[in-house]
Amino acid sequence: MNKRQEKKIIVVGTDETSYQFAFLSMLKLEPVEVKFYQLPSLEENKIRDLQFSSYFSSECSFSIANTKDFLSTDLLVITAHEERKIDESNDAYTRRNILLVRKVIKKAMANGFSGLVLIATEPTDIFTYLVWKFSGLPKEKIIGLGTYIDSNLFRQLLSKKLGVSSRDVNAFIVGGSSKQSRVTTWSRSNIGGNPILGLMMDKKNNFNQNDRINIESFLSERDLFSRETNSYFTTASALIELSKFIFNDEKVLVTLTHLVNIADLVNIPLSMPVLLGGDGVTKISELSFSDSEKKELLKVAKETREYLDWIEKG
Amino acid sequence: MNKRQEKKIIVVGTDETSYQFAFLSMLKLEPVEVKFYQLPSLEENKIRDLQFSSYFSSECSFSIANTKDFLSTDLLVITAHEERKIDESNDAYTRRNILLVRKVIKKAMANGFSGLVLIATEPTDIFTYLVWKFSGLPKEKIIGLGTYIDSNLFRQLLSKKLGVSSRDVNAFIVGGSSKQSRVTTWSRSNIGGNPILGLMMDKKNNFNQNDRINIESFLSERDLFSRETNSYFTTASALIELSKFIFNDEKVLVTLTHLVNIADLVNIPLSMPVLLGGDGVTKISELSFSDSEKKELLKVAKETREYLDWIEKG
Amino acid sequence: MNKRQEKKIIVVGTDETSYQFAFLSMLKLEPVEVKFYQLPSLEENKIRDLQFSSYFSSECSFSIANTKDFLSTDLLVITAHEERKIDESNDAYTRRNILLVRKVIKKAMANGFSGLVLIATEPTDIFTYLVWKFSGLPKEKIIGLGTYIDSNLFRQLLSKKLGVSSRDVNAFIVGGSSKQSRVTTWSRSNIGGNPILGLMMDKKNNFNQNDRINIESFLSERDLFSRETNSYFTTASALIELSKFIFNDEKVLVTLTHLVNIADLVNIPLSMPVLLGGDGVTKISELSFSDSEKKELLKVAKETREYLDWIEKG
Amino acid sequence: MNKRQEKKIIVVGTDETSYQFAFLSMLKLEPVEVKFYQLPSLEENKIRDLQFSSYFSSECSFSIANTKDFLSTDLLVITAHEERKIDESNDAYTRRNILLVRKVIKKAMANGFSGLVLIATEPTDIFTYLVWKFSGLPKEKIIGLGTYIDSNLFRQLLSKKLGVSSRDVNAFIVGGSSKQSRVTTWSRSNIGGNPILGLMMDKKNNFNQNDRINIESFLSERDLFSRETNSYFTTASALIELSKFIFNDEKVLVTLTHLVNIADLVNIPLSMPVLLGGDGVTKISELSFSDSEKKELLKVAKETREYLDWIEKG
Repeated sequence: MNKRQEKKIIVVGTDETSYQFAFLSMLKLEPVEVKFYQLPSLEENKIRDLQFSSYFSSECSFSIANTKDFLSTDLLVITAHEERKIDESNDAYTRRNILLVRKVIKKAMANGFSGLVLIATEPTDIFTYLVWKFSGLPKEKIIGLGTYIDSNLFRQLLSKKLGVSSRDVNAFIVGGSSKQSRVTTWSRSNIGGNPILGLMMDKKNNFNQNDRINIESFLSERDLFSRETNSYFTTASALIELSKFIFNDEKVLVTLTHLVNIADLVNIPLSMPVLLGGDGVTKISELSFSDSEKKELLKVAKETREYLDWIEKG
Repeated sequence: MNKRQEKKIIVVGTDETSYQFAFLSMLKLEPVEVKFYQLPSLEENKIRDLQFSSYFSSECSFSIANTKDFLSTDLLVITAHEERKIDESNDAYTRRNILLVRKVIKKAMANGFSGLVLIATEPTDIFTYLVWKFSGLPKEKIIGLGTYIDSNLFRQLLSKKLGVSSRDVNAFIVGGSSKQSRVTTWSRSNIGGNPILGLMMDKKNNFNQNDRINIESFLSERDLFSRETNSYFTTASALIELSKFIFNDEKVLVTLTHLVNIADLVNIPLSMPVLLGGDGVTKISELSFSDSEKKELLKVAKETREYLDWIEKG
Repeated sequence: MNKRQEKKIIVVGTDETSYQFAFLSMLKLEPVEVKFYQLPSLEENKIRDLQFSSYFSSECSFSIANTKDFLSTDLLVITAHEERKIDESNDAYTRRNILLVRKVIKKAMANGFSGLVLIATEPTDIFTYLVWKFSGLPKEKIIGLGTYIDSNLFRQLLSKKLGVSSRDVNAFIVGGSSKQSRVTTWSRSNIGGNPILGLMMDKKNNFNQNDRINIESFLSERDLFSRETNSYFTTASALIELSKFIFNDEKVLVTLTHLVNIADLVNIPLSMPVLLGGDGVTKISELSFSDSEKKELLKVAKETREYLDWIEKG
Repeated sequence: MNKRQEKKIIVVGTDETSYQFAFLSMLKLEPVEVKFYQLPSLEENKIRDLQFSSYFSSECSFSIANTKDFLSTDLLVITAHEERKIDESNDAYTRRNILLVRKVIKKAMANGFSGLVLIATEPTDIFTYLVWKFSGLPKEKIIGLGTYIDSNLFRQLLSKKLGVSSRDVNAFIVGGSSKQSRVTTWSRSNIGGNPILGLMMDKKNNFNQNDRINIESFLSERDLFSRETNSYFTTASALIELSKFIFNDEKVLVTLTHLVNIADLVNIPLSMPVLLGGDGVTKISELSFSDSEKKELLKVAKETREYLDWIEKG
């Protein structure tokens, strides 16, 4: 009688997030096999530490990936980025990271990879688009972390403030990777279908304009923090949640970067609510954002398209 | 260093549901202490079997309650009912069960009980009202199973049909305990806030009028089945879920019988969506039912009131 | 991406233990598919109740087995027994149950069954032997419940009395199915390898001859109880533990009935410590029982062989 | 109704192990409150990252401890150590770490601390002794990590090699913190009480002298690795296991550093098998080591006493 079928993950990256993700895989995704495709640089001691730690929690193995592994891999998790040079501009740094990711994706495709790609390398919207271009994989298989962490935090904050299980709170932050391109969609947020804006108006609920401002400033603070610090515990936790939804084929409604058409723009990488399951993302019907939210989103989409044009020009 | 604090439950009843609930408590609610207040009749062998089975799963104890136990009990689960006599009418049978439940509640209150009451004795709407009357406890502490099983089934059927995690499906069956008093609120059902009726209209979603009919007939079938059979695996599973929400103070949105005011009627026991947590039920803001659904509900409320009048007349 | 591979179980039996085992399978073994081969008699309502209850706990399906199912089944759990006639002798009753089990095994083998068989029909030692004869399957694939529940209880009682995690207590009750054929192997019982008889002699440990007598009388009481009552919560819990060890290929040291050679007797069904994993049982090296324990075991073996002779004579 | 009672931990340290331990506490020990007593240096960003990550896994809070927190703390986990200076000798470095740990313990005791202390700062044998001296707490409340990781690895390696669940393997590495003071007690290792040396002699078991050598060299390699690298995934995993045993009062047999009397030496910090539960360690009866193992242990005890003399001379 065979044991349960193992899932196979290749983690591409050499920062703390990649090792932390691997460690959590053992605790939360088993049975799973985690391989490291170590770019940019190798830290073998971390892998040995992971191996020794696995003796406290069976059923997981860690090793260094070789190119043959891509063929049988279910999920590619990309956290890789170059070390930033002193005084390097954002654009120059992004261009170097593009070369790095391109190299991995080309290698993966040349070796028969056909799984899902989960992207945490920033800016995740740009890399979601580029991985799609580099790989030729179907759109629904390419997913960027996008505003997933922000939406989850928004949901939890509302849950606590309103005294409602987070399971019953729907709350989405959508848009792009940069701070000013995030749109907090209050109009669409609801508890089991009851709009939160309605609850705010009902005085009994004890939820007012001030609470809204507090929540927004807490979200801004997190956003800022994540840009300044490699918050690897949080990022790895988020990647694990998403991997779980994929491996269990849960079809959960989450906010992730994927390619969407908006107005007359096609294949724009935006973070929007989507169902995540074993085959990647599935869109759900048209969302009823407010007019101002729609306007903001369109603006973000245009700016993203312009930035992609600049990149694609080389 | 002490172990974690145990919760204490008294189960009132002597049918399969009561033993099954106790058994599941051990597996799903530990650390918990389960006592039996054995009405109408004692089956000590079942309790000994439960005790021996607990050696496969530590941290649970089973025993027979004495009246002093009511004081420190967190949750009273009532499944008790008399054995039905041949050719006994519904009304006569209900009156005998009322005497049984009244006896327990009076005993509990006389001994300082101040916890929550979860009622599975049918008809749960009538008993929710009567336990409130008999006990003098605050309304929010008295909960009837009502349409909880039906709503959960509705949610799961929609989840499967639509290919969406049940976590993200909101779907409620509301109303009373009798078959014809159940209202399936399609108008309010949604996925993360997107109305399901809208999804049904969208042809891409492959969800049509036929699917709706199939779901409704499956729900009717279950309803009928539960009236004819003591479906103790299902009922005990439902009671355990609710106990978990209570003990973890989850404040989850569920459909349960509790006392509501509707139009000019007050304290009518209806099964409606409500938040369930450690202190019992909390109402959420006005629900946006459709006009026809509201009309149906009002009809159910009136009929329930009339039946209660008949009972209260003695 | 596929979900995890489901295991398939056929439960043969129509008493409470069989339904309880199926229900627990859903909670503890998922993903699993449970089929009922309903002998002696059908109770479809129980299966429908199980099906409805599964909406509270996904990933399990229940249905009635047809003969084609035997081919792909991993585990056959046999709890079947005829209803006992008034004034029927043990021997006559056993003969009727033999016909029942024989019928199932012949049907299973004719349809390509090649999995493991776990036997709870009493006397489990006799049926372990007979299923081996009827099926022609390798010995290591046929397992009887034997003294598993007794050994586990012994272990837990020692754990509580000595204040040591049950994980670290090794304690075995061996022998046959009848009350007088159980041997409590104090000589072999130990904590992490330290003999318990030694600990009893050490006065600091506060464990004396009286404690030994108390434990033995508690064990006798359970044994007696299990003969008089269908203790289905306990039996189903035990069967689930064993199924888990099998499906996870845990190779745990447990006491189960299997065919052993002892002195010059071959293929005697005795309950003895053995490793249980995905391929069934594996024997471990010679156990160091005391001389008196060995003598008792040999006596049990001889009596079992005589009873089997009587049965095989027809 | 209140939530379950939270346990409170103060983590003393500012290296990766301390943050990793805190992160794992959230996943494995909840409900728990983790406070950081940040010596030697503060890294507030890590704590904020932990706080944000907790939104993926409720019921845990992280914050910086103040001195008042010691009073209500159940467990003090010490991983603190100074940053090593270039060319600093072992002895000089240890002396600086002693000052650091002394400062914390004095502060804890001055503020009413009365919980357990779990020590991961190396050398853990020396610090187990010193924390006992500094604190005045009862011996059974002071525990050093000692050879716990090594024993666990030994157990797992035997489990894999022998094809037996690790639950049933008893295998202990005992002694001191330095490499040459570890004693692998083959004589005492057993499977459910069956000596492993006996199994090795039995040819059927396919376990020979070569396997023994392979296991020993793997253990040496891990030991060497742990001295050269801060293997924080492994160390934090081990500390979490031990914390779990403590909070659940499991009384598990594990190898930990605690104060023992050996021959005519008293209060020597040695890593030896002991029961770990909510009140700390309890000794079990005399262990039956082989003569050569006993001799080795006595040698280690003497060397440890000499080193402690040197330290205590100042």
